[in-house]
Amino acid sequence: MNLRKTRTASAAHGTTGTTGPTTHPPTEPAAPPPGGTTDGDRAARSGVSRRRLLGTAGAAGAAGLAVGAGGGLLAGTGDRTASGNPDVPGGTAPLSSVGATRLDFHGPHQPGILGPARAHGELLALDLLPGTGRGGAAALLRRWSRAAEAMMAGEAPDADNGVAGGTGPSGLAITFGFGHDFFDAVGLVDARPRALDPLPEFSADALDPERSGGHLWIQVEADDPTVVFHAVRTLQRAAADTARVRHRTAGFNRAPGAASGESGPRNLMGQIDGTNNLRPEQEDFADRVFVPADGDPAWMAGGSYVVVRRIRMLLDPWEEQPLETQERILGRRRADGAPLTGGGETTPVDLAAVDERGRPVIPADAHVRVSAPESNGGAAMLRRSYSYHDGFTGDGSPDAGLLFVCWQADPMLAFVPVQRKLDRGDALSAFIRHEASGLFAVPGGAEPGGYVGQRLLEG
Amino acid sequence: MNLRKTRTASAAHGTTGTTGPTTHPPTEPAAPPPGGTTDGDRAARSGVSRRRLLGTAGAAGAAGLAVGAGGGLLAGTGDRTASGNPDVPGGTAPLSSVGATRLDFHGPHQPGILGPARAHGELLALDLLPGTGRGGAAALLRRWSRAAEAMMAGEAPDADNGVAGGTGPSGLAITFGFGHDFFDAVGLVDARPRALDPLPEFSADALDPERSGGHLWIQVEADDPTVVFHAVRTLQRAAADTARVRHRTAGFNRAPGAASGESGPRNLMGQIDGTNNLRPEQEDFADRVFVPADGDPAWMAGGSYVVVRRIRMLLDPWEEQPLETQERILGRRRADGAPLTGGGETTPVDLAAVDERGRPVIPADAHVRVSAPESNGGAAMLRRSYSYHDGFTGDGSPDAGLLFVCWQADPMLAFVPVQRKLDRGDALSAFIRHEASGLFAVPGGAEPGGYVGQRLLEG
Repeated sequence: MNLRKTRTASAAHGTTGTTGPTTHPPTEPAAPPPGGTTDGDRAARSGVSRRRLLGTAGAAGAAGLAVGAGGGLLAGTGDRTASGNPDVPGGTAPLSSVGATRLDFHGPHQPGILGPARAHGELLALDLLPGTGRGGAAALLRRWSRAAEAMMAGEAPDADNGVAGGTGPSGLAITFGFGHDFFDAVGLVDARPRALDPLPEFSADALDPERSGGHLWIQVEADDPTVVFHAVRTLQRAAADTARVRHRTAGFNRAPGAASGESGPRNLMGQIDGTNNLRPEQEDFADRVFVPADGDPAWMAGGSYVVVRRIRMLLDPWEEQPLETQERILGRRRADGAPLTGGGETTPVDLAAVDERGRPVIPADAHVRVSAPESNGGAAMLRRSYSYHDGFTGDGSPDAGLLFVCWQADPMLAFVPVQRKLDRGDALSAFIRHEASGLFAVPGGAEPGGYVGQRLLEG
Repeated sequence: MNLRKTRTASAAHGTTGTTGPTTHPPTEPAAPPPGGTTDGDRAARSGVSRRRLLGTAGAAGAAGLAVGAGGGLLAGTGDRTASGNPDVPGGTAPLSSVGATRLDFHGPHQPGILGPARAHGELLALDLLPGTGRGGAAALLRRWSRAAEAMMAGEAPDADNGVAGGTGPSGLAITFGFGHDFFDAVGLVDARPRALDPLPEFSADALDPERSGGHLWIQVEADDPTVVFHAVRTLQRAAADTARVRHRTAGFNRAPGAASGESGPRNLMGQIDGTNNLRPEQEDFADRVFVPADGDPAWMAGGSYVVVRRIRMLLDPWEEQPLETQERILGRRRADGAPLTGGGETTPVDLAAVDERGRPVIPADAHVRVSAPESNGGAAMLRRSYSYHDGFTGDGSPDAGLLFVCWQADPMLAFVPVQRKLDRGDALSAFIRHEASGLFAVPGGAEPGGYVGQRLLEG
């Protein structure tokens, strides 16, 4: 049982209320804000900058908390800071370890919403086998929760296949959701949230039903690909007589330590992605992302709705565009992500700026303008995406793009209005294609001893 | 041009002769031996253990060499040591960085043979478009070599798409090979090595011709998945009018820093893999892996032959076996990789040992016995594999297994006899299936200013 370790940190889990933006994981000290969370490094970078301003060395802080958690290196000092480079000298304290980063499965929210996206993320949708019913679904979620808790803690799950032996949890985060048709399948139609009503059709959609929807959804993330495989396979085996994988996509982000400068992570079009995202320090962050404690339905308190879109990037025509054209389509400079109205990556976009001939500097159809909260009555969501590359299609072009993942308290107030606007007037639309779609209700985190969805399935 | 950096280290490239086992990369200090190279961490682990015995701290050694190479952190201090954890305290010296690890494209051998396999590896086979001819192929290899040299140095290739901006080279290694049919396509049949004669058929093969063969082969490896995507896409674009991707598989190994103990990396059956591999310190290592300076054909001097097998693991029946059965099939303990005859992972297997009833402790059909050099007239090859997971098949089982990659001076003296023996009597055969196969001639490294295959294409 190489994999088994003592799990000591959960007692240190500090929560700030059911709907507040808590810090996941507790063993990842000064958990970075999820701003810019198409890549974890990005969020971590913001985090360390703040700590530097406060005169607190990231590594020393990490060591202090690790000691406090009682586990030394094993307790998880995975402080991915300083532009994604975990190896910035930090004095004599033990520095970070990719493998030792450990998140708590329990908490007011499930673990894969706040905190950074990891280097690897897999999204699976499963359908219940006929006749499973509510009891079978509850037993499945109980098995899944138990396995997720163990693996996230670096412990071996039941009937372990040994694949992750010797490897730390590596920031493993496992998150479960329920799709629209789940409630029909288990006879709980009355408990289905209205927020799960099917998304409207968008004119540019080219959705593959085989890769869309699903009764159940799992997001598995970690900084190590073998840890991700181990978790996916373990969860699939635990579902064997109950549910079957409907579709699965593997995604990636920049690896911890791969960046050597301060620039943010990029998507497969070469753009710095995740700028101007929701940030936990924003006053309305929790209201926008999480269903409140007195929300409807009650079983979704502390939960969130996730919209997943497989967005194919048409890289052949995109890469034929001159850089200047690409930048006008986006409204940002490719090199540093700064808006065309000047400044740096995090400088606010000046949508009102005009050039010497009175034309808007940010074109009317620029992606950054059309998607901005200011253009959408304030609508905003927490983006936390992965890139994917599934080989090459028959015409020789890459089957690659963005696994767009966004979180919100209500899709009708976030994803839907923004996507409607993009669908009508985004210059980027000519270079992307939405090929699959999913919408899932992700309940709050499980209580210790409980399981995800317990309030629904035993309600 | 965030990506552009000064490249300072190539002058420090030390070679030990055309056919000797040189250390790739020169900027990765005390390059670890490729023993156990189904995962780079493994090799690095052995490396640091030796250095520890010598009383030399890995991190201090790294810092010293990095300074010698003149580039500080940018020169690459990616010393993946101490059980794959790059963050072991090493005094006040700058520690390692995943992104900064930089390999030299030039050298007597191509870069993806010696040194560790990385966290990510993609294998591509391409076919030349009709009418390309020798001149077109030479121009392609020249473009590819130029792009590979730039990207491996952390510089932007021509017409860069910007995807790797801000990210260090992350140990990027790009390696090119020629398949049997390449020589027909370009009218160089007389230059085709006899070693490229098609492999014999094995009884357990279930080869998919669409995923086998190919005129040209590329192995792209790095510790960052966006760096791999960037390189693959760049090389594909550079081939656009000349060659087309025939098949591509993405593989993975354990990420740097993911291991928290001393145990080696594991394959998707849960086994520690890569034990008892060829090691550069073995006297006959170079003879076994590389074509000698006076070898035949002359253009392959310093080159090697790679056999690639997509080996599907039948994980459903495998995981149904009790642990004891799995261990008898392999001849090793799953927990620590030690042979059933005792000791630790690196303890030699005692094939002669018998139990109290006189039966062999290592069963006659155990994988470790059947594949051992002692069972194959000394035949051995350098294994350097990746795991893969391409989703789930129609029956719900994982489409996953091993991208077996092995290197040798002559396949008829290495892969072929060993695989013949395995094909007849390996207990593991019931749980695996060879689904694709490739054999490629990988010439020696390019000279500075030259390109891979130049001696063939201009010979």
